[in-house]
Amino acid sequence: MRLDKFFDTINTNSHIGDERMEACGLIVEYNPFHNGHVYHIQEAKRVSKADCIIAVMSGSFLQRGEPAIIDKFHRTNAALSAGIDIVLELPYPYAVQSSDLFSKGSVHTLNEIGVSSICFGSESGDISRFTKSYKVYNENKFTFKETLKSCLNQGLSFPEASRKAYEKIGLTTSEMDLSQPNNILGFSYVKTILDNNLPIDPLTITRTKSGYHDKEITGAIASATSIRNKLFTDQVISADIKDTMPAETVSQLQLYKHDATTWHNWEHYFHLVHYRVLTMSHHELSEIHGVDEGLEYRIKSTANDVTSFDDWIEKIKTKRYTWTRLQRIFAHILTNTPKTDMEVAKNSSSVPYVRILGMTETGQTYLNRQKKNMDVPLVANLSRTTDPMLSMEEKASKAYYSILPAKKKRVFHKQELQPPILK
Amino acid sequence: MRLDKFFDTINTNSHIGDERMEACGLIVEYNPFHNGHVYHIQEAKRVSKADCIIAVMSGSFLQRGEPAIIDKFHRTNAALSAGIDIVLELPYPYAVQSSDLFSKGSVHTLNEIGVSSICFGSESGDISRFTKSYKVYNENKFTFKETLKSCLNQGLSFPEASRKAYEKIGLTTSEMDLSQPNNILGFSYVKTILDNNLPIDPLTITRTKSGYHDKEITGAIASATSIRNKLFTDQVISADIKDTMPAETVSQLQLYKHDATTWHNWEHYFHLVHYRVLTMSHHELSEIHGVDEGLEYRIKSTANDVTSFDDWIEKIKTKRYTWTRLQRIFAHILTNTPKTDMEVAKNSSSVPYVRILGMTETGQTYLNRQKKNMDVPLVANLSRTTDPMLSMEEKASKAYYSILPAKKKRVFHKQELQPPILK
Repeated sequence: MRLDKFFDTINTNSHIGDERMEACGLIVEYNPFHNGHVYHIQEAKRVSKADCIIAVMSGSFLQRGEPAIIDKFHRTNAALSAGIDIVLELPYPYAVQSSDLFSKGSVHTLNEIGVSSICFGSESGDISRFTKSYKVYNENKFTFKETLKSCLNQGLSFPEASRKAYEKIGLTTSEMDLSQPNNILGFSYVKTILDNNLPIDPLTITRTKSGYHDKEITGAIASATSIRNKLFTDQVISADIKDTMPAETVSQLQLYKHDATTWHNWEHYFHLVHYRVLTMSHHELSEIHGVDEGLEYRIKSTANDVTSFDDWIEKIKTKRYTWTRLQRIFAHILTNTPKTDMEVAKNSSSVPYVRILGMTETGQTYLNRQKKNMDVPLVANLSRTTDPMLSMEEKASKAYYSILPAKKKRVFHKQELQPPILK
Repeated sequence: MRLDKFFDTINTNSHIGDERMEACGLIVEYNPFHNGHVYHIQEAKRVSKADCIIAVMSGSFLQRGEPAIIDKFHRTNAALSAGIDIVLELPYPYAVQSSDLFSKGSVHTLNEIGVSSICFGSESGDISRFTKSYKVYNENKFTFKETLKSCLNQGLSFPEASRKAYEKIGLTTSEMDLSQPNNILGFSYVKTILDNNLPIDPLTITRTKSGYHDKEITGAIASATSIRNKLFTDQVISADIKDTMPAETVSQLQLYKHDATTWHNWEHYFHLVHYRVLTMSHHELSEIHGVDEGLEYRIKSTANDVTSFDDWIEKIKTKRYTWTRLQRIFAHILTNTPKTDMEVAKNSSSVPYVRILGMTETGQTYLNRQKKNMDVPLVANLSRTTDPMLSMEEKASKAYYSILPAKKKRVFHKQELQPPILK
């Protein structure tokens, strides 16, 4: 369903005037949605002075190549309750990628919907340092690229190689420390905006307290990783975790587990992806996005002796093929995403559509004013997947729900055919 | 491992003389192995007067497109205890096929190993009627083929169409009733032998009491279908079933269930094949063997609303696409067997190898004498799968064990790398 048709059928209570509304964009995964995210939303509102906050969110699978702990619809509900006005879906071919393509998809999605600014969290917290660093980067692009290339040839992983390349042009020591994960992502957004001359102000706020990779719960603001670990260990939401999340996240997590019977993690998919690899030829495996440089042989030869997903990754992992990179590759195997399908995402100058997962009344008002100015279609659901990228999204969603009991799969996938969530 | 190398390393107690041993071949599935099979073995010995009984047996998947209730190794053990001297594996591309290719693979496997006769069970029980019918068939081949073709074009299923074609040339009324399932299969064997001028005597015995498709246990000789149904309902071997099977079958069934945790049936594979179809494109599905005439659309469109394997088949089934045919197609989807891989089986004049699953001392003696006269390699296990057909067998085996717990899969698949079972 096209969203403009959807708008013709709904009755918005909001008055539609002519004055321009300003929107600020966030780029998020919400897995799970914790107090740090709420702080981010509030700060984005404050610093951008926007009328409307628009989040672009990963769908079934996240940037690190993991299945989201609960599905996109339950995360959308939590996000709308916490102050987001519109939740957009970052298409699968951009979501499960390293920072370059992840940024490309996110920033262009927000650009197509007309945000005036994008606000991201960073260790630095000072946007002028990002823009100054972009200048340094731009002047030393050649050195950067050469260093990156030679580091990759030496067998370093992509994050490691880019860190070295940034270091080479002075971007880990001076203005900007591009060895820190949120600075790296933020710099990618800034680069995408400035490389493409997009009419978007980059804004940043300081990330507080918990680090990206922290594994322990450390108080009211905890990292997504630490919350996720605790949830999977306990299999219930304990009191200390409750304090780290807004009430609506807690109830969406509980609701999902109650209805779907599980929270999702890679181990639940092990039997599916293992079965698939065991019944694929080396050639078929090499056609999957990310399976390069003979990795198909390593994946197949280790498959005979592994008994869990972690065990498998541990056996394949090298300096060059990091855990995250391998998880992404396994997501592409699980969803059967060939290299050829990913070419669209790589080669297009923008995104082919903008999909709305949910919105508040403010969001509806914004969209009603904005929709006529848009260059790409607004998509309300997957009921007519004519765009190849929507078909990939549909496959990813079906793979995501594949671990649920037979009757649940159908019910949960049907959410993809419904209109966006209205709050 | 090549079997001739295997023979160099084992010490057979049997004296190897020069006198020729006569072997009689049986074509079987042993799913499960019941008293009717033992009767067949004894009768085959009696009518053929052979020194050695050789069975060619389906491996992981059976002719009707079903997974075998217990694996090939446990069925081999039961067969060796019941009077079979050598158990050979019918390669997957012949096993999961309609009667023509099933016969081709079975008869040629037995021919390569040098049997003098093949003894099959039939409703008719009179071999002269089969050979006379072959004459009739041969003289009316053109009419038969034309009728078959036109019936298929009218949308009839293959079994239904061949029944009509046999009827047209008088082979359901006179000498031979080719509307009965065991007569049909037997006639296929006879046709393969005579079409190829193979030096093999066809022999037949009358099938006793229980029909092929009977669903109820009817005494000491019950059909495989009725036993299987009762096993899956009860999940234990009840007293009335015990009487229908040799003691060794009972213990192999119990042993397998104890060690592997389950008996296999299609419903156990539903989540795997469902997941696979949901993440395949129409084009990919159309490349699977058996998915013809736009069937990919029917399989994909029904996939969204099914909650069990039976439910799915029921929704796809037509007059032309029978339950059995669809089960075979689903086996090919599950094992990821493309049309291109099946070409070898269709186009070759014989089988590419003979794989031994197990043998008694008599069997060893026979093979030691026979091996030098053979035109194709004897294969002992899947440790070096250089032949494309062996790779298909390996994939089928991995798909078969995919429903077992992670640690069991590995253990059970390792049987494929061991030397044949010696009894």
